[in-house]
Amino acid sequence: MNNILNCVNDNIVEREKIMVKYFRDPLYSFIKINEELILKLINSREFQRLKYIKQLGTSEVTYYGANHTRFSHSIGAMYLMDRALSQLNDQINIDEETRMIALAAALLHDIGHGPFSHVFEKVVRVDHEQWTTNIILNDGTEVNKILSEIDSSLPQKVAEVIKKEYEHKFVSYLLSSQLDVDRMDYLLRDSYYVGVKYGLFDVDMLIKSMLFNEDKSNIVIDYKCLYAVEQYILARYYMYWQVYYHKTTRGYEALLKNILKRAQYLYQQESLDIKVDILTPVLSNEKISIEEYLRLNDSIILYSIMTWKNSSDKILSDLCRRYLYRDLYKAYEFKNQLITYDRVKEILEEHGMDAEYYLAFDKPSNVAYDYYVEGEEGEKPSILINRNGKKMSITRFSESIKALSGNQGIKYYLYFPRENYDNVNISDDIIKYLEGL
Amino acid sequence: MNNILNCVNDNIVEREKIMVKYFRDPLYSFIKINEELILKLINSREFQRLKYIKQLGTSEVTYYGANHTRFSHSIGAMYLMDRALSQLNDQINIDEETRMIALAAALLHDIGHGPFSHVFEKVVRVDHEQWTTNIILNDGTEVNKILSEIDSSLPQKVAEVIKKEYEHKFVSYLLSSQLDVDRMDYLLRDSYYVGVKYGLFDVDMLIKSMLFNEDKSNIVIDYKCLYAVEQYILARYYMYWQVYYHKTTRGYEALLKNILKRAQYLYQQESLDIKVDILTPVLSNEKISIEEYLRLNDSIILYSIMTWKNSSDKILSDLCRRYLYRDLYKAYEFKNQLITYDRVKEILEEHGMDAEYYLAFDKPSNVAYDYYVEGEEGEKPSILINRNGKKMSITRFSESIKALSGNQGIKYYLYFPRENYDNVNISDDIIKYLEGL
Amino acid sequence: MNNILNCVNDNIVEREKIMVKYFRDPLYSFIKINEELILKLINSREFQRLKYIKQLGTSEVTYYGANHTRFSHSIGAMYLMDRALSQLNDQINIDEETRMIALAAALLHDIGHGPFSHVFEKVVRVDHEQWTTNIILNDGTEVNKILSEIDSSLPQKVAEVIKKEYEHKFVSYLLSSQLDVDRMDYLLRDSYYVGVKYGLFDVDMLIKSMLFNEDKSNIVIDYKCLYAVEQYILARYYMYWQVYYHKTTRGYEALLKNILKRAQYLYQQESLDIKVDILTPVLSNEKISIEEYLRLNDSIILYSIMTWKNSSDKILSDLCRRYLYRDLYKAYEFKNQLITYDRVKEILEEHGMDAEYYLAFDKPSNVAYDYYVEGEEGEKPSILINRNGKKMSITRFSESIKALSGNQGIKYYLYFPRENYDNVNISDDIIKYLEGL
Amino acid sequence: MNNILNCVNDNIVEREKIMVKYFRDPLYSFIKINEELILKLINSREFQRLKYIKQLGTSEVTYYGANHTRFSHSIGAMYLMDRALSQLNDQINIDEETRMIALAAALLHDIGHGPFSHVFEKVVRVDHEQWTTNIILNDGTEVNKILSEIDSSLPQKVAEVIKKEYEHKFVSYLLSSQLDVDRMDYLLRDSYYVGVKYGLFDVDMLIKSMLFNEDKSNIVIDYKCLYAVEQYILARYYMYWQVYYHKTTRGYEALLKNILKRAQYLYQQESLDIKVDILTPVLSNEKISIEEYLRLNDSIILYSIMTWKNSSDKILSDLCRRYLYRDLYKAYEFKNQLITYDRVKEILEEHGMDAEYYLAFDKPSNVAYDYYVEGEEGEKPSILINRNGKKMSITRFSESIKALSGNQGIKYYLYFPRENYDNVNISDDIIKYLEGL
Repeated sequence: MNNILNCVNDNIVEREKIMVKYFRDPLYSFIKINEELILKLINSREFQRLKYIKQLGTSEVTYYGANHTRFSHSIGAMYLMDRALSQLNDQINIDEETRMIALAAALLHDIGHGPFSHVFEKVVRVDHEQWTTNIILNDGTEVNKILSEIDSSLPQKVAEVIKKEYEHKFVSYLLSSQLDVDRMDYLLRDSYYVGVKYGLFDVDMLIKSMLFNEDKSNIVIDYKCLYAVEQYILARYYMYWQVYYHKTTRGYEALLKNILKRAQYLYQQESLDIKVDILTPVLSNEKISIEEYLRLNDSIILYSIMTWKNSSDKILSDLCRRYLYRDLYKAYEFKNQLITYDRVKEILEEHGMDAEYYLAFDKPSNVAYDYYVEGEEGEKPSILINRNGKKMSITRFSESIKALSGNQGIKYYLYFPRENYDNVNISDDIIKYLEGL
Repeated sequence: MNNILNCVNDNIVEREKIMVKYFRDPLYSFIKINEELILKLINSREFQRLKYIKQLGTSEVTYYGANHTRFSHSIGAMYLMDRALSQLNDQINIDEETRMIALAAALLHDIGHGPFSHVFEKVVRVDHEQWTTNIILNDGTEVNKILSEIDSSLPQKVAEVIKKEYEHKFVSYLLSSQLDVDRMDYLLRDSYYVGVKYGLFDVDMLIKSMLFNEDKSNIVIDYKCLYAVEQYILARYYMYWQVYYHKTTRGYEALLKNILKRAQYLYQQESLDIKVDILTPVLSNEKISIEEYLRLNDSIILYSIMTWKNSSDKILSDLCRRYLYRDLYKAYEFKNQLITYDRVKEILEEHGMDAEYYLAFDKPSNVAYDYYVEGEEGEKPSILINRNGKKMSITRFSESIKALSGNQGIKYYLYFPRENYDNVNISDDIIKYLEGL
Repeated sequence: MNNILNCVNDNIVEREKIMVKYFRDPLYSFIKINEELILKLINSREFQRLKYIKQLGTSEVTYYGANHTRFSHSIGAMYLMDRALSQLNDQINIDEETRMIALAAALLHDIGHGPFSHVFEKVVRVDHEQWTTNIILNDGTEVNKILSEIDSSLPQKVAEVIKKEYEHKFVSYLLSSQLDVDRMDYLLRDSYYVGVKYGLFDVDMLIKSMLFNEDKSNIVIDYKCLYAVEQYILARYYMYWQVYYHKTTRGYEALLKNILKRAQYLYQQESLDIKVDILTPVLSNEKISIEEYLRLNDSIILYSIMTWKNSSDKILSDLCRRYLYRDLYKAYEFKNQLITYDRVKEILEEHGMDAEYYLAFDKPSNVAYDYYVEGEEGEKPSILINRNGKKMSITRFSESIKALSGNQGIKYYLYFPRENYDNVNISDDIIKYLEGL
Repeated sequence: MNNILNCVNDNIVEREKIMVKYFRDPLYSFIKINEELILKLINSREFQRLKYIKQLGTSEVTYYGANHTRFSHSIGAMYLMDRALSQLNDQINIDEETRMIALAAALLHDIGHGPFSHVFEKVVRVDHEQWTTNIILNDGTEVNKILSEIDSSLPQKVAEVIKKEYEHKFVSYLLSSQLDVDRMDYLLRDSYYVGVKYGLFDVDMLIKSMLFNEDKSNIVIDYKCLYAVEQYILARYYMYWQVYYHKTTRGYEALLKNILKRAQYLYQQESLDIKVDILTPVLSNEKISIEEYLRLNDSIILYSIMTWKNSSDKILSDLCRRYLYRDLYKAYEFKNQLITYDRVKEILEEHGMDAEYYLAFDKPSNVAYDYYVEGEEGEKPSILINRNGKKMSITRFSESIKALSGNQGIKYYLYFPRENYDNVNISDDIIKYLEGL
């Protein structure tokens, strides 16, 4: 008889007590955690902060259901890592230390995110992955202490997974590749909260499809599950265009960026009349300490905008009013990428508006748009399919993925105010000009 | 570090190949089976027959989605048994033999069902549980051989679980009690296929709630999960009244029963003009062999009705026409249980109809209606709640369950034809009489 | 015709009673029907027959959840037609007659299907669409009478919708095109019952995307919903390869086809020893009457196979045994399409097996595989996208659809017995030969 | 007012353009809004504020998925109101004005909520229903202006619905009774986000069950849907005990209440060293203006706690630290309600802790716990069941509801710090005392 638990066979023996905690997750029902290390990391100050940072930032303005946080996503990614390891463990015995490192890395992979991450990184020039490893490695943080208590080398090893330098490459692959638990969780979770079906795919089959390659260093995908992988890649593609790059969301991001830019400018000119202490380090040009960074969250941003609405600086005050009361820029999609927008700037300035803060150009595909690109694009290894022992890129097997991977899919948007100034509608003027091009 | 798999810890070691099969299940996504014994039992002739027996019999006439079979329910029950054992295994080590016996018993628990089971049992006087153990114990069947190959005592032990005589009582409890994997699966599955939400409950929490009692012989329920148990019991209650006891479904059953009764009568009078060989053993008064029994399924019944529609016996032919073309009896709910229905019979006979076949009385609660009854009602042990070490019946903790358990909830229906005969509407006559009572 | 909104508009006035019936549907919760015509059609003999014909035929052998019938699919298609009309009615007022014709056509579009349709059509050379219009137009059927009662031209008009000759082209488009309510319902329903996510797409957005073209004759799709259309087309693509063309299912179909072929051969040789009256018209070479055709259903086939298992013809008996007890042919996928399979035939015959019944060749893409083909492939009009007033084929906007539409995606399978005969394993011999090619 | 169906009925005629907007809702897929009034109300400042107020306040600490806001709930309630009206419109024609008033009232019913409403109302002594009508009636608000533009009596009428003084009583019933769209939406929505199945019920059947009573003034429920109503009432009951009254959530509320109480105390003593302008009106004893009130939201509270953590007041600083870093009070459930907790207070004070801020007593059932109480409890009319024309309270038909409605279901919790002070564990001391009682 197939003997799964090679334990003593003399009938029914009581086990020692294990500390167990169950988390309710809207996607996965219960998540059972019986590793003390993981429970401690979840309760750490740095991890608790993620409760105050929304996963999709400004998407709420377009999809009102999108209120979920990086906290739930991080626990979800950890859960899927556990399931993937358990699947792979059927092929090769994965030792407990490797497993703990993998779970901790999945849990902590977003710990360095700031509020409204994409906006923030551009204005303040922070890199969330850099902050993540800083927080793990810095001996002043709780997560560092919790990891070090187990073994002094643990913080280093967890950071290595995130930096893709860990000795067991497959762990980094599972966390950050073209087919990783990070994406798998966020596609499912974002779909669930937004209320769309675009991000759905067969997560059970995807996990089942994972095989070790010959030298056991990395992951390949079973050919029999090809369609599940296709569906997952297309899920990303749909989510990017329908949700993540939605023009209203991006316009809101542009507005937020301009608010921060204006506040930064005023601060550095010493003319910002209303100060929010916690946000000050971000506005100055100086280096931010870990402690300062860890005080940042979505509420700080919202609070700042609410107070700055009363600023004596007209531009800052007006931008904040727009943000709070949904008086958004108009989004205009156009084809010609080479347009010099000098004339648009002129039109705005003829109406007395500072184009620096009232005109925004957005080109969604320049950013982290890598739904699937052939080869080692950036740091995301591509997906290898294993068919009867031969490994080849998925683009060799799938026409639709091949088609998508050769295609950059850029869109071009201009954002500008839609209202009347001096009885003239600015939008109309600008659009008339753009359509005449 | 918490060490779950007490295997050797010297890193990554390849495992031996295990035969694994995944079944797609609409409720549980993938069901992974890596026990050769279970796979062989699923492929046995006796188990394959369950594909041709619908789980809810005549319910299709009321709820067109209810097309699922005893095959899928049986695999589902086995899957939930596996999950329950895995949960309990955290408390006490359950040895592999016990586990295999439990899984086999869950898989095979419905193998003795005939087509349209409740109708069939009444007409033919078979007892499906008796047939189940016969099939497991008879050395002519494939399931018997498959079990015996492992160990000659296995068929006996599996049958003991079903008969509640197995040494590890908790296994029988998990299979057949007031809180068992059989009910858990059928409530969820019937809800899914019918398309109602009545049968939904928190199956994950329910499984999580199971604890061993002090002497490890049986199951008690953690007080913290009380609401999940309440919800599950109420799910049964709703499903009984809204689905299982739906008056249209029951009327259809009455019609089917009368068809079989009439064919039986004609056969025994040697005047059944159209014979369906496979069904003949059922119509005669003689003992049915296992082989004969195993040839019965839903299609045989439907085929018989289709051919009997052309019988020269007017009653048989007319009943079959009604069955096929949805010309159902009218259902009339009434309160007074003590009514002698002699007068109704008379009215029918005044119109030239044989009340034996055109009048049916139904009293849903006399039958297997035990959504929760305090104490050891029949063979279904009640649910004990464990609160801080004290075990008491659930009715001590839950007002709503207590209320339901004291209440029998009977309904009374008469079924009779609704059409006109000789320009008189029979229904109208009967209803006028009944309402005058 | 039933006029719902013809009441006075001055405040709160009681309405006349309308006959309303609600059907429970697992996909759409309640389907509310308040059109007497539709309710009568559902209760007709011809429509009730669809309860005994499974939607996916032999797929049950691969996916045990796939028990749903053409009955539920047909009601679902009618429901989606109603929703599409209601959406389009926001743009153009659709009169009640057109609506009734569209609903009736959607409800009845599959009424001519035989059991295990694809197999059956090949063996018996019937065309289900031809039968559908026959049944609607023949004045002996109930559906014909029900339609004629409203207006004598109604049967003709409903049949025209099905034959794509109806004056309002958009109604035929909604019922049968590359983007129609038939496919929309079956993809969702098949996914639900099978338990996969491949067939899911955003049906609400798809219905919302439908616009009339300029001359109001046909449907175009709003560019803003492009991704929903892509997802829907890919859903079909996944369902074809993962479900409809699954090699086990197709092998089972091959087996069923051979059973019918053998019975047909024996019947025409006057040597079929066991006869099933209802099936006889199918085995003879003569014309089948509508009445004979309407007696056919899945149970007749299963019943025949159960009785033929005892035939004195060894081939027929053996094939039936294989069918009932899941002793399937082995499926072997190979690449070289040009293989003459004479040698495989020889190997089988060396082992005393008749290749006519023990060898099957399958090439899935030859059949109705049109997940999306550019242009007017067969009778399925392609999808036009409307972007700022310009209409173009979807392949102009979508790289992934373009990639799929140029690609035929054929697979080649041979099916042959896997067992030993005379101590030689036939499969091994054949595979050795094929791999040596 | 927008008249959708006023077009000619002779065949296919183009309609005038209607402004339509679709909202994605995770529960109801698309919500289609084509009423200009409703769209304007959604875009008003007062309604947009609800985006920053979470529906379940502190529940996030227990269930991390519970991030949804009063904004989405309010749109959901409006959507269910629309569906209920459309169902009732089959019986009696509901004029457009009544419909608009009902939709507006459903949309705006929570507009007066402050952040963490239950906590806030106790500390600051505001009444959210009073604020709701203030905001609607005050001519300085945007919602007032939008409503008045249609008709100057509209604000008054909408407020009447909320105050249950509107001439068409059934509208108030639909919004606020024992069976209203408010509860229906929040049970479903809270279940969805929390990730539990407790709050699920058959919303489609519930809406379908609604009938007008004889004089058309109010709503009664069709007896045939009794089980759906039972399930809905039990859903509330489960949600209360499993989610809303979860001891961890309530402990967190107690902590928040103590923070606000301490800040209030310090402010009134003129010794609050860190001020947050927006929150100041709440801490003073003076009347809050509508404008001041509308600036309050969850972020203001969180921001305040983050800054007060650095207060020089040790109690305030410590409470804020506990809140941010999840150093919660211990919850202790006890049975004896009559306990004077003087001794517990003493124990705390022996350890130098101020019981005013470190001890909390909670008795969940005193609050708005009205899952179903017979009769006109407070302002929530009870549910009348219509069976064959007779109307009686649901408790006459349902044993389980009757059982629950007679039962108050109170729990008693004490909350106190769990940590060691001076090497003594305070919790242990207190529990030892309590268990000795």
